[in-house]
Amino acid sequence: MWELLAASGSARRGRLQTPHGAVETPAFMPVGTRAGVKAVDADDLEGLGAQIMLSNTYHLMLRPGAELIAGLGGLHGFAGWSRPTLTDSGGFQVFSLAPKVTEEGVAFQSTYDGDRVFLTPEEAVHIQEQLGADIAMQLDVLVGLPAPRPDLEAAMERTLRWGERALRARTRDDQALFGIVQGGVDAELRARSAAATARAGFPGFGIGGLSVGESAADRDRAIDATVAELPGDKVRYVMGLGDTEGVLAAISRGCDLFDCVWPTRLARHGKVLTASGDFSIKRAEFAADPRPLEEGCDCATCARYSRAYLRHLKVTGELSALRLLSIHNLRYTIRLMADVRAAIEADEFEEFVGKRTAHRMA
Amino acid sequence: MWELLAASGSARRGRLQTPHGAVETPAFMPVGTRAGVKAVDADDLEGLGAQIMLSNTYHLMLRPGAELIAGLGGLHGFAGWSRPTLTDSGGFQVFSLAPKVTEEGVAFQSTYDGDRVFLTPEEAVHIQEQLGADIAMQLDVLVGLPAPRPDLEAAMERTLRWGERALRARTRDDQALFGIVQGGVDAELRARSAAATARAGFPGFGIGGLSVGESAADRDRAIDATVAELPGDKVRYVMGLGDTEGVLAAISRGCDLFDCVWPTRLARHGKVLTASGDFSIKRAEFAADPRPLEEGCDCATCARYSRAYLRHLKVTGELSALRLLSIHNLRYTIRLMADVRAAIEADEFEEFVGKRTAHRMA
Repeated sequence: MWELLAASGSARRGRLQTPHGAVETPAFMPVGTRAGVKAVDADDLEGLGAQIMLSNTYHLMLRPGAELIAGLGGLHGFAGWSRPTLTDSGGFQVFSLAPKVTEEGVAFQSTYDGDRVFLTPEEAVHIQEQLGADIAMQLDVLVGLPAPRPDLEAAMERTLRWGERALRARTRDDQALFGIVQGGVDAELRARSAAATARAGFPGFGIGGLSVGESAADRDRAIDATVAELPGDKVRYVMGLGDTEGVLAAISRGCDLFDCVWPTRLARHGKVLTASGDFSIKRAEFAADPRPLEEGCDCATCARYSRAYLRHLKVTGELSALRLLSIHNLRYTIRLMADVRAAIEADEFEEFVGKRTAHRMA
Repeated sequence: MWELLAASGSARRGRLQTPHGAVETPAFMPVGTRAGVKAVDADDLEGLGAQIMLSNTYHLMLRPGAELIAGLGGLHGFAGWSRPTLTDSGGFQVFSLAPKVTEEGVAFQSTYDGDRVFLTPEEAVHIQEQLGADIAMQLDVLVGLPAPRPDLEAAMERTLRWGERALRARTRDDQALFGIVQGGVDAELRARSAAATARAGFPGFGIGGLSVGESAADRDRAIDATVAELPGDKVRYVMGLGDTEGVLAAISRGCDLFDCVWPTRLARHGKVLTASGDFSIKRAEFAADPRPLEEGCDCATCARYSRAYLRHLKVTGELSALRLLSIHNLRYTIRLMADVRAAIEADEFEEFVGKRTAHRMA
């Protein structure tokens, strides 16, 4: 489902085909937690060039429920979104709730109403088939870092077994199921996990358990060990990664897909992402600043509004500030990926990273 | 600045000329309290056909300050809004703060930082000239209803004197200053106030002190008494009125301009305005309803989203629900005015009101 179009060093320019159209990679996937990206809508996402939206199975299975969404035409029909979609398995949220984990699955208490819920690898596939995204993720086992090696190893091995069960549970041919590589920041465990996940026959791979507070060096090593064992003709998705430096490092190691709530979460706190560095719009120095958030930015917010106006909206608590800043930060991140794709096509990826990093340090 | 184009009974179809373009009347003015309508942005307002935006002098004089806004090109430059604008005088908010009122002006405490502020009719003109809206309003004296007749009369008489002072304080030829008729629901006071305000030479008239909880019958009588004494070739603005029945009743009595926070405030509480009646999107019966908020509505929300999705966003607390519902309610109100204008042009206003009222009762 993914083809390599060009490369620059280890960085890859590719195209992911889905039933709802193609995704040019490397690509950033905005996170639509509850079938909508916080503070923005589908018109906004189309306008800023989002190619694919990620949604969270954990939230949707509990509210409004997967069956209800299936009855309304799946995520696409429900959310009014016609471009590609991806759902996670729910694992990331569930494992943050201190669940009871057995070989069979994971038991947890709903944060919505306190109900006891039991999720298995098969049920995670079933629910995601009801949600009907173009890409589903297997249920994996997460452990917080740092963790004793035997715990990491056991979680990784169980993730492999759950991956096999997930593959056997599939019933929809129009939905791709990605396996997930685990193993913490242990290179040997990552390599074993990647090799075994690759053998299982998934059409694409998540690299899970990263972007949880580990150092950049540890993450780089874990990604290197993973990528070395993955096939060159399949897509690689680093789950939960979305900051500029992190994404560029992962792309330089051969990764293709990314998602992160930070561009929108930072926006809601007034933080603005730009190519020359980040800043808080709440700072007093912007009170009368007529410039856009970022000179040369082509987003709808920068096209119309000054820093002075956006600061005013933010410090007086106007809701529209959260949306307008989110639009800019998403567009910043999505344009970064477009610039990366162009740099790889021109075989100038390393120069691009050098220039980009110099700018942000200046 | 206003010309009559057509009439149907006492209902008037007109055109208000401003330095930033024409406003076709009857017209509804969305309230951009702090130079932005809550939860939506200027792109949204243009898209839903808003002809003119109202902003609140009280809020803007305190945050970010009129001088700062003047330095950024006035309200238009500051808010990125190129269509006509109107500012109130600040009086409505100030009089809700239990201020100290003298003949000279009104002293109050800022709700932002507790600072003591003194506002005079001259200062209200000066601040609004700095804000630079196309239309400014005189500072008027408000009393809560019901009130003893001598209090109503004194407030009305002082409003007349403050109107004269406001006219003398003007320095900008490119900004129209409207007088405000007061007198509570006392027909005789209203008539005296209207006749004297008309003689003062204002290019347009606010009808103040209404839409504060009085009965529809009392309001109708107050408007009738006012309109009878106002010149036929000048525009009439019922301040704070925006519900369907209230607006239709005022238009049938010869009024032209309206503003109200209710379409957006109700939206933020999940209430949807439609031609066939209002409803709360939070009701369980909409959980799987694939229909738009209102069949046949041409707003961006109805074009894309189902009741099921909007209910989901609202009940799970997603910010985007507040914007999407606000867009619908504003478009409903603005389209109502467009339908009214067409009905007056066809000399079928009374029939229009009859049909509209029957629909909403059904």
